[in-house]
Amino acid sequence: MIINRSQILRTPGPTPIPEQVQKAMSQPMIGHRGKGFSELFQSVTPRLKPIFGTSQEIFLLTGSGTSALEAAVVNTVAPGDEVVVVVTGNFGARFADICEAYQIVVHRLEVEWGRACHPDALKTFLKSKKNIKAVFVTHCETSTGVLNPIGDLASVIHENSDALVIVDTVSSAGGTPVNMDKDGLDVVVSGSQKAFMLPPGLAFITLSENAWKAVERTPSKGFYLNLEAYKTNAEKGMTPYTPALSLIYGLDEALRMMEEEGLDNVFRRHETLMKMTRAASQALGLSLLTTDEEASPTVTAIQGTATLDSEAVRQTALKTFNLVLAGGQKRLKGKIFRIGHMGAITPAELLQTLILLEFSLFKMGYPVSFGTAAKAAEEVLKNEL
Amino acid sequence: MIINRSQILRTPGPTPIPEQVQKAMSQPMIGHRGKGFSELFQSVTPRLKPIFGTSQEIFLLTGSGTSALEAAVVNTVAPGDEVVVVVTGNFGARFADICEAYQIVVHRLEVEWGRACHPDALKTFLKSKKNIKAVFVTHCETSTGVLNPIGDLASVIHENSDALVIVDTVSSAGGTPVNMDKDGLDVVVSGSQKAFMLPPGLAFITLSENAWKAVERTPSKGFYLNLEAYKTNAEKGMTPYTPALSLIYGLDEALRMMEEEGLDNVFRRHETLMKMTRAASQALGLSLLTTDEEASPTVTAIQGTATLDSEAVRQTALKTFNLVLAGGQKRLKGKIFRIGHMGAITPAELLQTLILLEFSLFKMGYPVSFGTAAKAAEEVLKNEL
Repeated sequence: MIINRSQILRTPGPTPIPEQVQKAMSQPMIGHRGKGFSELFQSVTPRLKPIFGTSQEIFLLTGSGTSALEAAVVNTVAPGDEVVVVVTGNFGARFADICEAYQIVVHRLEVEWGRACHPDALKTFLKSKKNIKAVFVTHCETSTGVLNPIGDLASVIHENSDALVIVDTVSSAGGTPVNMDKDGLDVVVSGSQKAFMLPPGLAFITLSENAWKAVERTPSKGFYLNLEAYKTNAEKGMTPYTPALSLIYGLDEALRMMEEEGLDNVFRRHETLMKMTRAASQALGLSLLTTDEEASPTVTAIQGTATLDSEAVRQTALKTFNLVLAGGQKRLKGKIFRIGHMGAITPAELLQTLILLEFSLFKMGYPVSFGTAAKAAEEVLKNEL
Repeated sequence: MIINRSQILRTPGPTPIPEQVQKAMSQPMIGHRGKGFSELFQSVTPRLKPIFGTSQEIFLLTGSGTSALEAAVVNTVAPGDEVVVVVTGNFGARFADICEAYQIVVHRLEVEWGRACHPDALKTFLKSKKNIKAVFVTHCETSTGVLNPIGDLASVIHENSDALVIVDTVSSAGGTPVNMDKDGLDVVVSGSQKAFMLPPGLAFITLSENAWKAVERTPSKGFYLNLEAYKTNAEKGMTPYTPALSLIYGLDEALRMMEEEGLDNVFRRHETLMKMTRAASQALGLSLLTTDEEASPTVTAIQGTATLDSEAVRQTALKTFNLVLAGGQKRLKGKIFRIGHMGAITPAELLQTLILLEFSLFKMGYPVSFGTAAKAAEEVLKNEL
């Protein structure tokens, strides 16, 4: 008997693509040097500003989120420069790896995976260093479901150094507020395949005036990721190289959907999804990796135990319901599973996800009282409506 | 805050179209007098036979289910002939209306809406009549969610008359077994928009050898619905008039999906969906219109009460979750709501439907203990897996 047909994608990226976006992406190709594209570009890029909380220009890179992380590095820091990378998980570590690939001297502030970086810890760490050119921080650490307190961390950085604050918002932007200007962030980077409800392949980057000064001083910026080319071309309503046109069609529609819902409502929906996931998980007796205070509205990590194999949960959910959950990465591999609840996902859809999770646990022989997940999630929804 | 985005269609037809079927229907048009169409026609029509439990040819009409009901009438009965129509709801009544539009003398066996026709009642009714040319019966009465005991009724008809047994299987075929040959049914009619997982616009009709003899005797059969033209053309792998080509593309894929799942599994899935719906409804304290014994695996009707306005349930579900339920028809208008659970719908999808129904009831102020619907439906699913 078929228990479910279509895949239920609950990984923290890629995320499900709404029908409207899919339809928008099917529009015929146009030349990227023509008036039609300029109009699209000039309509889309300013509408990204509220999502990043900035009055700065947002640049579109055709690449995965990592390409924008690398752009953040190569445009602002030079080989031999010293930087601090706050490592709260796999994507913090990636920032460090990119820096080291360019012979940048990396000081890693290692934080226990599953915890956020405390501003005091960063303060102490910074005080022990000199001539730090940039501090790299991950806003939402996708691998653990932690949301780092980016505003507080940025304040500490500015108070204790002249370093640029470079932030990875790949799995936060569009799902939870990013306040670049207010928080004094210098470089903010994101990608299309998470809360933006798009397929992977488009990345976003935006720089403060201070960051642009650093770009001017940086001697070698490579070619494809040299942001000066993006800046010059953006002034003409273009990208320097052939853009991922269908994704930009999709972005236009995704932004329209976010505008129609209202950005505050989008954020509130993500908060609700987080609370529903956490409440249902706890009601089922599962252990959350993060505390409520440090939890991200976009992804939740749940710990395996001696009696609950996290990989078996994923396999059972996939086999029984075609429900795709994410596993742990690197040192968390085999120790957690993750539920992505960002982008197009709605409370009505998450109710189903949580009940299917419950039934999957039952199928594994985990002690489950049917109705528990639904009850807990419904209670949250009741209070949020 | 957006609580749900895409429509959740749970009416007893039209039903949701699977992506694969949607994709199949998007194939380019071809000429309906060419080899390509003949091949498609000759591939599709024999594969309908197991669904209707017959070795007879199945004919494709381009029209709604009602066109096939009318074809059943005009091809086998003549003005002035006497027929019995078993009326267990709105669609039984439609058979009678069609007959009367052709000056056929109709004897209605009226059964309480929500109940099935008992074979003894039909026997008594038939014994009081003479020269009955045909008895019209609805298999699943969509308006009440009753499944009439078609095999027993057919036996009674054959034992007590020479009448043809003409059966409407619009909302049963493909969702529950139809055993035309075994049960001695003479004309069986169905439509595309229910358990066949297709949009409306295509109808099916098949006739026993006895029924074909009646066709030969029928003097005037109209034009578009004259089945002799369909028979002659089918022998050449064609339809007499331009067919709903995209629906036939879709039918090819829908049949492939049913074959892949296995027809027995399709039927078992529908049984499971029925049991889940009934268990959850009863756990929520709702009154079912039909008994377990007479319930259809494809649609469930739930009664409103003095404290539960069935129309308000539908409106709340629609407004809160974009969940579309059906209302009552004719004398049941405003007295029931109906949940369609046929075609592509899976247990995983129905779990969501039932929890959204529960939450809608809560929103209306109906006393609900969260988790009740999920628990009841999960218990059923557990036993069915």
